[in-house]
Amino acid sequence: MDIEAIAQERRPRSLAQGLSSLRTCLVKCKDKAVDLGRSIKKLGQDDPRRVIHSLKVGLALTLVSLIYYVRPFYDSYGISGMWAVLTVTVVFEFTVGATLSKGLNRGFATFSAGALGVGAQHLACLFGEEGEPIVLGVLVFLLAGAATFTRFFPRIKARYDYGILIFILTFSMVTVSGYRVEKLLELAHQRLSTIIIGGATCIIVSIFLCPVWAGEDLHKLTILHLEKLAIFLEGFGSEYFQSVNEDKPVISTEEKTFLLGYKSILTSKNMEESLANFARWEPRHGRFQFHHPWKQYLKIGALVRQCAYRIEALNGYLNSDLQAPPTFKKRIQEPCLKITSESSKALTMLASAIKLMTDPSLASLHLHNSEIAVDDLKILLKTTSLEDTELLSIVPAATVASILIQVVKCVEEIYQAVNELSDLANFKSAVKPKVSPEKPQAQLLIHLGVVKPVVNIGGNKGDVVVTVLDDKIPENENNSRANYPDQPL
Amino acid sequence: MDIEAIAQERRPRSLAQGLSSLRTCLVKCKDKAVDLGRSIKKLGQDDPRRVIHSLKVGLALTLVSLIYYVRPFYDSYGISGMWAVLTVTVVFEFTVGATLSKGLNRGFATFSAGALGVGAQHLACLFGEEGEPIVLGVLVFLLAGAATFTRFFPRIKARYDYGILIFILTFSMVTVSGYRVEKLLELAHQRLSTIIIGGATCIIVSIFLCPVWAGEDLHKLTILHLEKLAIFLEGFGSEYFQSVNEDKPVISTEEKTFLLGYKSILTSKNMEESLANFARWEPRHGRFQFHHPWKQYLKIGALVRQCAYRIEALNGYLNSDLQAPPTFKKRIQEPCLKITSESSKALTMLASAIKLMTDPSLASLHLHNSEIAVDDLKILLKTTSLEDTELLSIVPAATVASILIQVVKCVEEIYQAVNELSDLANFKSAVKPKVSPEKPQAQLLIHLGVVKPVVNIGGNKGDVVVTVLDDKIPENENNSRANYPDQPL
Repeated sequence: MDIEAIAQERRPRSLAQGLSSLRTCLVKCKDKAVDLGRSIKKLGQDDPRRVIHSLKVGLALTLVSLIYYVRPFYDSYGISGMWAVLTVTVVFEFTVGATLSKGLNRGFATFSAGALGVGAQHLACLFGEEGEPIVLGVLVFLLAGAATFTRFFPRIKARYDYGILIFILTFSMVTVSGYRVEKLLELAHQRLSTIIIGGATCIIVSIFLCPVWAGEDLHKLTILHLEKLAIFLEGFGSEYFQSVNEDKPVISTEEKTFLLGYKSILTSKNMEESLANFARWEPRHGRFQFHHPWKQYLKIGALVRQCAYRIEALNGYLNSDLQAPPTFKKRIQEPCLKITSESSKALTMLASAIKLMTDPSLASLHLHNSEIAVDDLKILLKTTSLEDTELLSIVPAATVASILIQVVKCVEEIYQAVNELSDLANFKSAVKPKVSPEKPQAQLLIHLGVVKPVVNIGGNKGDVVVTVLDDKIPENENNSRANYPDQPL
Repeated sequence: MDIEAIAQERRPRSLAQGLSSLRTCLVKCKDKAVDLGRSIKKLGQDDPRRVIHSLKVGLALTLVSLIYYVRPFYDSYGISGMWAVLTVTVVFEFTVGATLSKGLNRGFATFSAGALGVGAQHLACLFGEEGEPIVLGVLVFLLAGAATFTRFFPRIKARYDYGILIFILTFSMVTVSGYRVEKLLELAHQRLSTIIIGGATCIIVSIFLCPVWAGEDLHKLTILHLEKLAIFLEGFGSEYFQSVNEDKPVISTEEKTFLLGYKSILTSKNMEESLANFARWEPRHGRFQFHHPWKQYLKIGALVRQCAYRIEALNGYLNSDLQAPPTFKKRIQEPCLKITSESSKALTMLASAIKLMTDPSLASLHLHNSEIAVDDLKILLKTTSLEDTELLSIVPAATVASILIQVVKCVEEIYQAVNELSDLANFKSAVKPKVSPEKPQAQLLIHLGVVKPVVNIGGNKGDVVVTVLDDKIPENENNSRANYPDQPL
């Protein structure tokens, strides 16, 4: 009786439950589909090159599959054509550098391992029918082991990891299959040529169809990081001292999250290193030479990270419960704001110098200003009498001041590193404080302000260029464009 | 006459030069060979598992090449055996998790893409002889494009990147070669079975021959990072206040570089993430269940990095030119040293709790002590009169004090996270301050100190365990070993 009652009670409930759970499920599915659609759209919008890359991979694959569809190709390559398909899938990467690195690694590794494999095969033949598989086995074991071990060397891993993988693969396949396949050389030749076809297709599509250059990405990433530091510093100044000046508008939460853009710098090391690695494989493109000093970007990146660590410590005091008394904050406000705004300007200048590939010495003015502000702050701290305030209450503000002084040091180091980059990559500018060694008698220069050439008498190396001062980078004059031939306009 | 004289002069010189340059070259070559030998030895000594891994790869390759050497295998697989060789080379990774991830990805991707490819082939057949290659081309283009795009989703990239690559590869190869190959299904079957053989060989060798578990590595890495923080804090205290107590021995340069061990934490994010990703694929091993909360390690890792950023800021004051006057340093020395040593002890305790997989509540005592020291420091700063000192001169020391207070906060957060880990992974211990939900009436517990069970009346779940306090983890008693059944002894 009890059980029946329970059962009767349950039936309609479970039907209703079933319907409602089906409805919930449908709604959930719809929500998920909408979410998925949204995230796909966002992924494409964030970086439209992703969509283009996907289409490029499709195109390259369709192109190499012609080897199968077109009779004459198929007659000469047979099913070896699949190596071309395989190569395209595996080698085609997002950036040109990565594609080149993988393609060249694959090509060279296949060639050398193939040759070595044929040699090993011949060597093993000398040991008679019974000895052959044993010798082959031992050779494969030794070579695969040794090659795998070399993959642990950090330098080799960074550049030739894929090559060594393919080396092991090809060597094993050639030696082992050589035991059964009669026409080993023909097979090796077919494989190598189809791999070359596949690799070449990848490289051509990658370079000539909306190329994504790892070098350019690294260049842009460095600029972005400098700008993010600048944004934080600028925002920090007004945010930290806002309580002192309550008539000023308070920064919105949106802007606050904007300030935290620097956080991505903290963990950017791996990305920078892999971009620099790929950039080394890239040919001359746009404003970048083949031997562009990509290593120097890593140096700048490391210093930018150092600065970001300081800023991370600074950020801890932004929303701290312990706030210094307004009177003390007000006292140090002026030099501190000067430090943040001038450092921020210096960083922005450095970013724009890298962007335009011009000499970064314009930033030195702001750097100098921030150093003066540091001195002012020090004098202020020296002369401040503390008779009426507790030390504890001013410790947070004193810490902020102290970290700001360290930040200025970091910015100085970044400036030096960008200067080195400018020298190494021959950044163009009329604003060079010293005469460069390549042009011993060249251009007479005036410090500070971008210089607009007016008359270039003769145009030879040794000639004197008469210049006039201009505060802004001239954008609309054809004359000056020659100074910035590679401006990203 | 002049030219002859020069030539005569040059000849003997160039001979001598040639000899000397040959000698230099030989010496250089010898030096390089010695260097290479040394770095190979170091690489092997740093982590002997590298040597073992290399041997394992060699072994796995030799094993799968048996498919070629042994007649019955070769008769059934033919040259498809090369897919086994290829699979082993590509799938065999350093850790079990990575090997499993790649192997399973490869297996499933090959299977699903193969099935889809055969379907596409049949679909294309419907469009007649002329339409077939066009339909095939369009299908390959669309599917390869779409699949490549999904590789940009961060979550998919982290776990299934290799699977999607193999999916594109297999789908293209099956659909395209299906156009020419008659026995498509047989080919697909052969390929799949040889891939399964290759993958299984990898997984078996990887798991049963000196396995390297990604999960265990992540576990150890977390412990190492906690220990590195502890070492720095301990060393920082004595190093920073050394000038005050000049009778104490100064820390040597070697020890100073030892202090900087924490620097590797700053950039450890990627490594931790990839280890956690691989760990998720691993079966139960040693002390780790299949669903061990690897994500929590990432949370701990992030907090440890936060702490390392603070420590990086702290380190800037270690060798700073600006040093506070000894009188002031001496005044804050006691609480600061207390903070560093107690935080360091708390971190060491947390590290050993994770190592032994026991409840971390022992660390709370030291954490509590460091919080008391923070309060002492605050009181000290509050009561310090600054009439006779300049604010500027004490700013660095005040900053150090302020950052130390933040470090204690970080350590607190780390403690919370380790506690969560302990709950999630059911770390064993008699020292649980609260009754866990799984054992509502279980063990009556006394706080602080490891508890040694003496009488367990009855032994049922609900029984009360009579306990006595013991300050040390008992290592030599069989009775207590049951409490730490998984101690790495």
